[in-house]
Amino acid sequence: MTTKITDEKISRLEELFASLPGLGPRSASRIVAELLTTRRPQAQRLCRDLSETLEAVHHCPRCHALTTRPMCVVCADQTRDKTVLCIVETPADLQAIESSVAYKGGYFVLMGRVNPLQAVGPEELGVNTLLERLDKEPIEEVVIATSYTPEGETTAHLLAGVIKKHKPQLKVTRLARGLPSGVEIEYTDAATIASAVAGRR
Amino acid sequence: MTTKITDEKISRLEELFASLPGLGPRSASRIVAELLTTRRPQAQRLCRDLSETLEAVHHCPRCHALTTRPMCVVCADQTRDKTVLCIVETPADLQAIESSVAYKGGYFVLMGRVNPLQAVGPEELGVNTLLERLDKEPIEEVVIATSYTPEGETTAHLLAGVIKKHKPQLKVTRLARGLPSGVEIEYTDAATIASAVAGRR
Repeated sequence: MTTKITDEKISRLEELFASLPGLGPRSASRIVAELLTTRRPQAQRLCRDLSETLEAVHHCPRCHALTTRPMCVVCADQTRDKTVLCIVETPADLQAIESSVAYKGGYFVLMGRVNPLQAVGPEELGVNTLLERLDKEPIEEVVIATSYTPEGETTAHLLAGVIKKHKPQLKVTRLARGLPSGVEIEYTDAATIASAVAGRR
Repeated sequence: MTTKITDEKISRLEELFASLPGLGPRSASRIVAELLTTRRPQAQRLCRDLSETLEAVHHCPRCHALTTRPMCVVCADQTRDKTVLCIVETPADLQAIESSVAYKGGYFVLMGRVNPLQAVGPEELGVNTLLERLDKEPIEEVVIATSYTPEGETTAHLLAGVIKKHKPQLKVTRLARGLPSGVEIEYTDAATIASAVAGRR
């Protein structure tokens, strides 16, 4: 019989890290060992920054993205087109759309997608904040920019329903589906080709 | 020109996580987003446990492994054979050797290996603690159980030199090299076969 040779405090810390997305027991042990030895200053900074940010963070009252300022950077920018609103799943998606320089309107960040198993429904994604904003601002079009994955599609479908019911005169669109740039048709999946054919112009 | 849409505090936290071993910018953003929303209790526990452990952790005065107790679990065990000492690189290696139930002696944990580029030499690996222990305890044999990798071999070579110089009458051994269990000879690399042939008995 072998007993596990452990130190309770260190192994509790390893378990905490191992439960984070993308990490397993081995990478967690390595991270903990480095944080406790060669990376002590970084570990102290991590404690301090994490607890400060946990205190300060909240959803932006306008776009629902996480921020530690009263209003997030995009919402505070007065130069954006106020008649279009783009709904994205995450700040990373927002960043990707910004990088395309093809969109100049406002954003609403869901900070996730509908997930019945984890009890994430439209309320958890801030739909109430979204509807209030549709009432208060001169928005004419809502672009639902969720991914074309099953969860993204479900999210888009539910959101479109809620928005249309709340304000039927609004134009609700989704990002075009089709062939990505720089990819050969030969290697493109059938679903993408089907959308590209249907959306031809 | 696209500017990065960021919140300084959140992105500082993301950078901290991204710099940990095994994590990149994407997994770091995901971890930070979850810690600040759905995993807040876990984040608070992480802050608390990490700062507590940073305070309490030190090298075991006997075997150099990290511990938060006065002496680590293995060293506190009075039933072990005190005449053999096994030198390992990490607590994970110690755990692997324990699982084999083939060794009942003491351990010395280097908490790393010699790495000239990161200025990790014998001193950083606690060689002084090791030599003191060789003087104080009735050790007759030292088993150097570093990996058969270039760094592991260098570490073993340096340690063997230091130990032999300090106490020439000590027996210094290394773990046997050879074929691993359950592996076909056909698929074994040449270096392993060469060691298995040389060490045949």
